[in-house]
Formats: sequence, C-alpha cells, structure tokens
Amino acid sequence: MATHTGPDAPIDESGTAPSRRALIGWGGAGLALGAAAAGGAAAALGGGADDTRTVADSGAAVPFHGAHQSGIATAVQDRLHFAAFDVTTGDRAELIALLKEWTKAAARMTQGHAVGGGAVSDLAEAPPDDTGEALGLKSSRLTLTIGFGPTLFTDRKGKDRFGVAGRRPEALIDLPAFPGDNLDPARSDGDLCVQACADDPQVAVHAIRNLARIGMGKVAIRWSQLGFGKTSSTTPDAQTPRNMMGFKDGTRNIAGTDTAALDKHVWVSERAGPAWLAGGSYLVARRIRMHIETWDRTSLKEQEDVFGRDKGEGAPQGRQREHDEPNLRAMLPDAHVRLAHPDSNGGARILRRGYSFTDGTDGLGRLDAGLFFLAYQHDVRDGFVPVQRRLARTDALNEYIQHVGSALFAIPPGVRDADDWWGRTLFS
Amino acid sequence: MATHTGPDAPIDESGTAPSRRALIGWGGAGLALGAAAAGGAAAALGGGADDTRTVADSGAAVPFHGAHQSGIATAVQDRLHFAAFDVTTGDRAELIALLKEWTKAAARMTQGHAVGGGAVSDLAEAPPDDTGEALGLKSSRLTLTIGFGPTLFTDRKGKDRFGVAGRRPEALIDLPAFPGDNLDPARSDGDLCVQACADDPQVAVHAIRNLARIGMGKVAIRWSQLGFGKTSSTTPDAQTPRNMMGFKDGTRNIAGTDTAALDKHVWVSERAGPAWLAGGSYLVARRIRMHIETWDRTSLKEQEDVFGRDKGEGAPQGRQREHDEPNLRAMLPDAHVRLAHPDSNGGARILRRGYSFTDGTDGLGRLDAGLFFLAYQHDVRDGFVPVQRRLARTDALNEYIQHVGSALFAIPPGVRDADDWWGRTLFS
Ligand code: HEM
Ligand code: HEM
Repeated sequence: MATHTGPDAPIDESGTAPSRRALIGWGGAGLALGAAAAGGAAAALGGGADDTRTVADSGAAVPFHGAHQSGIATAVQDRLHFAAFDVTTGDRAELIALLKEWTKAAARMTQGHAVGGGAVSDLAEAPPDDTGEALGLKSSRLTLTIGFGPTLFTDRKGKDRFGVAGRRPEALIDLPAFPGDNLDPARSDGDLCVQACADDPQVAVHAIRNLARIGMGKVAIRWSQLGFGKTSSTTPDAQTPRNMMGFKDGTRNIAGTDTAALDKHVWVSERAGPAWLAGGSYLVARRIRMHIETWDRTSLKEQEDVFGRDKGEGAPQGRQREHDEPNLRAMLPDAHVRLAHPDSNGGARILRRGYSFTDGTDGLGRLDAGLFFLAYQHDVRDGFVPVQRRLARTDALNEYIQHVGSALFAIPPGVRDADDWWGRTLFS
Repeated sequence: MATHTGPDAPIDESGTAPSRRALIGWGGAGLALGAAAAGGAAAALGGGADDTRTVADSGAAVPFHGAHQSGIATAVQDRLHFAAFDVTTGDRAELIALLKEWTKAAARMTQGHAVGGGAVSDLAEAPPDDTGEALGLKSSRLTLTIGFGPTLFTDRKGKDRFGVAGRRPEALIDLPAFPGDNLDPARSDGDLCVQACADDPQVAVHAIRNLARIGMGKVAIRWSQLGFGKTSSTTPDAQTPRNMMGFKDGTRNIAGTDTAALDKHVWVSERAGPAWLAGGSYLVARRIRMHIETWDRTSLKEQEDVFGRDKGEGAPQGRQREHDEPNLRAMLPDAHVRLAHPDSNGGARILRRGYSFTDGTDGLGRLDAGLFFLAYQHDVRDGFVPVQRRLARTDALNEYIQHVGSALFAIPPGVRDADDWWGRTLFS
C-alpha cells in the first residue's frame, strides 16, 4: 500500500506501507504555530494518535522506473488528466533542470508521496513543496508519462529551439489533415505532454497541477483534458469498459502482457531508432466530440451496424461472444470495426488507451462529450495515420463524431533508476 | 449489490443481486439480428454463460423513496454531475408528464437498472430506452435530487408560466449580488436542476444524459458541472476530504445522522411551509473559481491564517485535533472559519455538499479549477445569505477565489413510493 504522504517520507517501491512517522505532512508548520507535539520537524502537528490514514487499499503503486515508461502497457486506470505544455523559457539548461526536477517529483508522486525532498522548504514562511490535496489518498496506481511534441525540436519557422533539432525523429511528422477534421488550435499540439492516469481523479489532477507549479515561468499549460471513464483495456480478462455511445470499447486491443505485439507495434526498436527513442513510442491524442443527441435518437440496429458489433454482449456481427474473432464480411462495408481492423490496414495495429470526457455543455445546450482518443504505436505512419485515413473517408461512425483536437508526441523510453531523468537520452 | 442492467430487470431496493436472466440488455436486438440464443426477448444475445458482471460491490444502492430526497443528508459520494435545465415547453401537462417520466427513470437508475420498462421499445428499429454506457456498472450509490428554480414559477417579466406562480415560496428569492461576484449568466440559474452524485462518474453522467434525452423537446440543459472530488462529508467518522487548496474541507458540517440539526437547519418544516415544500430544502449552487497559481505561491503560514486551521491535521488554530472545538479568537479577524462559524452569524448553519472541479485551462494557461459549492438549508435568508454576506465583505480567502456562477433551487420533499412523482406536491 502506498499513501500520499508528507515531504519527509522516503520513496519506497516495495509496496509496503510507509512508517507512521513518515505519514505526517507539514511538520514545520506545526512547530511554527507553536502548537504542541513532540518530535522533530517531520513528526510534529500534522499527525496524531488517531491519524491512521485508514483509506482502503486497492493495489500497489505502479513502479516508476523501468525500460519503458509506465502508463502505456501497464493496466489502464479509471481516470485521466492529460496536459499539453508550451515551453516558455528559451534556455536549454533551464529546460533540462526542469525535466530533472519533474522526474524527481513524478517518481515521488507515483509512489504515493508528496512532492518535495525534505522539510527545508516546508517552513511556514515558504509556500509548501506540495499543494496537499492528495495527502491521505493512496497512490491510486498513478502513472505519469511524458512526451515531446514536434515543436520542442523546431519552431514553426524551422528554427532549432533547444539544440535538438537534428534529433527530431523522422516519424515525428506533422500529422496530415483528415477529411472531416475540425481542429481547435487551442486544444491541439504542444511542446511537451504529461499523461496522468490514476484510479482517483484527485490524484491525477494533483500530479499535473504540481508539475505545472514546479514549471512556473518555464512552461505553461497549453491545454488539458480530464477523462472520467476509460474506454480501453490492456488487461483482456477484465470487463471491457463502455464508451459514451454505450458500446464496449477496447475489446480488440494490444494486451500489456503480449510482449511480442508490444515489441512489433508499440515500442520503438533499436534498429528503427533514433537511438534516444529506443524503448519509447509515439502517442496520438485526438479529442473526438460525439453528437450524443443524434446518436441517442438512432435505432439500435443502426447503432450496431455502425460498429459491426452488437451492443449488449459486444460480439462481432455474425458471432456470439465479445472475444470471438470478427468476421469482417458479416459487417456492412462502412462499419467502424471492419474499417479499423488490421486486415483492412495492411496489419497496422495500435494500442488504444482513451478516456470518455464530458466538459459541460456547448452554447447550444448540447453535451460537450465524447472520446479523448489516445493511441500508442512504434510509428504513426504505420499506425494511426493509415487507419485514420481509411476511417475519415468512409467510417459510418463519422455521422456521429467530429475530431476537434489533435496532437502527436514522441514518448521517450523509461527512466531507468533514481539517477536517470525524463529526456536524458534526448538531451545528452 | 445492485448492478446496471437491461430494461427488463425489476426494480429491487433490497440490495440483493438481480437474477442472471435480468442482467441482460438489448435482448430484442439479438433476435433482430438473427444471431443465435434461445429464450425470450429478455434472455437473448446480450448475455451468455460467462456474462457474470463481476464488478466488485462497494455498497448497496441508496433508496430512492422516502420522506426526504436522497443526495442531501445521505453519505456524500465521490463524484458529481450537476445539470441545470431550461424548460422549453410552455405546456403544463407536458411538463408534468415529463416529471413523471423522469421520476420513473430516476427510481430505476438509482437502483442500478437501465432506463425503460420492458422490451417493447428495445426493438432493433427503435432507439434503445437506455444509452447503455452504465450497463455492467454497479449502482455506485447514485442519488438523483431535483430542484425547482425561481424562473419555473414566474418568468423574468413576472408572468405565471405553469400555473404555480402563486406557490412560489417567499424564501425562493432572487439571490442578492455580493461584493466580488463575477457571475457568468451562462453558468447561472435554471428552471430545474438535477444533482447526480455517485461513486463512479460514468454512472452520474449516464443519469443526467438519460434524463436530458427523455426530456428532449421539453427541456434543454442550460449548464452542467462535473465534480471530481467531494469537499465535504456528512459522515463525521469518515476521513475528511481535501479541497483543491489542500485543506481538509467539511470538518464542521451537519451530519446526516444529526436529525435534530437537520430538522432545525436543513428541512423545511410544516410550520414554515409552504405545505408543498415541507420535508424539502433549498439548494444554493455557486461555482467558485480558485486562483490556484497565486495560492500555490503563498506561504504555508499565510495559507493557514486564511482559513484559521492548520493544513496537515486540519485543527483549528490554537487547538490540536481536527475535530476540536474552534477557538475563534485564536484566529485572525478575517479568517474564513472565524467568519463562517455559526457564532459569527447568529447561529446560521448550512449543510455543505460541494465538489472540486477542474475544467481544463482558461485562455491564459491557468487551471480553470475550484470549488463547486453546494449548500442545503431550510431558508437561504437564514443560511447562505447572511454567511456569504459576511464572507464576501471581509474573508481573507477572497484574494484567492472568485464566485463565477450562482443558482438557487427549492428542493421538494422525497418521493414517497412508486406512485408518487417529483413535483406532485407542487403541481397537484
Ligand atoms: C469516437 C470515436 C470512436 C469510437 C466511439 C470508437 C469505438 C470503437 C468500438 C466500440 C470498437 C469495437 C470494440 C473494440 O475492439 O475495441 C472499436 C474498435 C476499434 N477502433 Fe474505434 N472508435 C473510435 C475512434 C477510433 C479511431 C479514431 C481509431 C483509429 C484511427 C480507432 C481504431 C479502432 C481499432 C483499431 C479498433 C479495433 C478493430 C479490430 O481489430 O477489430 N477507433 N472502436
Ligand atoms: C472556494 C471557496 C471555499 C473554500 C476553499 C472553503 C474552505 C473551507 C474550509 C477548509 C473550511 C474548514 C473546514 C470545515 O469545517 O469544513 C471551511 C469551513 C466552512 N465554510 Fe468554507 N470554503 C469556501 C467557501 C465557503 C462559502 C461560500 C461558504 C458559505 C457561504 C462557506 C461556509 C463555511 C462554513 C459554514 C464552514 C464551517 C465553519 C465552522 O463552523 O467552523 N465556505 N471552508
């Protein structure tokens, strides 16, 4: 069990509970207020005899260190907070220092600890190291996954921004325009992205917000998206979640345990390169709005024909069980599943890891809701691009959806250990 | 355990699992597609031998029927979807028919069932009775609470809209303007509101969306708000949640078990009336934006002085434990808790039931985040209004917040049984 704790808690990936002494936040503050409590700076006021943080535990923290970043092949959590950042500093050293600081904070937060390395800056006269709203919450399987957008390498005029223009991967293309796209620049692109996934939204929001806080003056949030319901599964034995159209989504996905498929379709190989990206991936993010009200007036038969699957069980048309092999010829020619299937796209496969969103209502009293589509692949030219090209042209689903935001990021490999940092392979 | 099921499942408030046959949705569709499966319309394709809906159960459904509406004194759930509606029909009978239909749907959904009473309209050629995205999810303690805004009684010009102008309670005032208010009309007011609370946001969103769908052509969503983290507790023994400022919020609140305080401060009494509202309440909703970035740069001491409580434990200044009685004189004169305390407001008390929100970023790269404040009371003139008047004038917190949306609703009493309906006491 890992629990969000004060700044003095040691990082612990073993899955065991931090000690009670470590569970106490804002020790310095307690002392500053002069209010009771024995012990050192780390064991003051914040806690007490009944301060047992008795939140039920739902699973160990997801390890932060490894060959690949977590948040891709690891089991999909329930909630998302995704943020795209603009880098506002022009200074390479400052950017690198920030990436190092972010890495430290991410390692702590994913293991259920508060940001900050000690009591030093938690003096009463300074702003707290951690904003505090996740204190007492468990790690909630938080993962933080960083990505680098095309504009981090070269600006719109092609100018080298941080001395890494020459390292921009060929596959980090400017995504082509697709028929039907209605992209809002204010919800597209970004120099950096951080995908925060957790079972508790407060933990995901807390993580993004603290990274933004740490980055103040060096980066600014360009756009962000909250996802409230996962629409995919990387653990095929789990119940497949339903999207906002009421259909099971993520049935045929790349499983986190299918290392052969991951190596072939998701991870950038040493051979393909560039070297700094080996073990990494590419992430496509698309904000896809659904015309919910139109969909809800559509007959069940039409709905099932649109996907080529039945709504209750999720079985491919002409089959009986959700996980039966699809018979594409039993579906209409413009059925979503038929068109998206690898057999229709030269074998192209992607790892989908999207979330449902609802952002209130638009000016016309319609729910601003849909799918925040996230897909990982080893090369978009062999993944999202050909599949979306086909879908954008003929998918029956197009009548009910519209792509309104878009971004592409190169996802660096995992952070190996406590000395490693996000972006090391790119910047050194 | 209650599980969202297909349209044929009987309503069951006993907390026991519906039968497996009842767990199957879209039976008609399976037959229409001619795909296998024995059994009647209710037991066809949708389910199968392995269709066991093995979602872990976190608690029984919250009863829908009773003297008071649930979602007020009942235990606070983790997530919120709140919607304000404009009534677009001018026809009283049509409005009444809708309220009856809504009540039926609400009774079903809160007990973990899909909308719709039978297989009839679940024919393949018709739109499904239920949109389906909550199928297979447990009830998640969903509560649906309806309210009637001032504009339902009389329009802006004072015209009687549905023959109930004479029944508008005196206490259903137009809220006064408070210093510092910066209200967005597009996020304020409404003829009706529905507060959907559940532990799973997909269940809350599903409920609002299906009510909107049922109301198509008669009502339109005016604004809606998603809340991702509760900022209050009506169960004092539970861990107090933290708001986006990192402070425990809801420490001193009216407990759902404190019937004396509920009767005195929350429920409209027979004596106070009007008769149709006895057992009901009044709900104030305020969208309060936080200047997160400024707050995060504020010293811990200043943060604690603003509230008059310490951040770690949540104890009142000069005390040691969260639930110690506040000593108001140990706080600065403009401390939030000091000013909001009943002793500073002639004994006024409210039941707070708010949620944190994050709606992405504003145009300036700042998090659009804060507190969606919800408070129930027997009379706003003796609850929210005097407290907010004091706060708006001198609260130290004002430097870090701004009220940007506002609404007031009369909350009718509970629906007594299956024959009763939302609004019966008002409209008959
Ligand atoms: C709002 C938009 C979308 C919705 C509602 C949606 C929904 C679905 C559903 C219900 C399925 C069937 C279940 C499953 O196997 O997961 C599916 C399959 C799939 N979708 Fe989508 N999808 C959307 C957009 C996209 C986009 C933009 C792409 C990629 C460009 C895509 C690629 C796929 C793929 C590859 C499959 C699996 C096909 C197979 O192997 O059988 N989808 N989608
Ligand atoms: C963003 C805005 C606000 C924040 C962050 C906030 C936060 C807090 C916090 C942290 C406490 C102390 C813990 C507790 O007893 O719950 C508190 C207490 C309280 N607040 Fe607020 N609050 C806000 C707005 C309001 C408003 C608008 C009202 C009513 C008009 C209000 C009424 C109260 C009351 C009645 C108490 C309990 C006072 C006592 O009996 O000790 N608050 N608030």
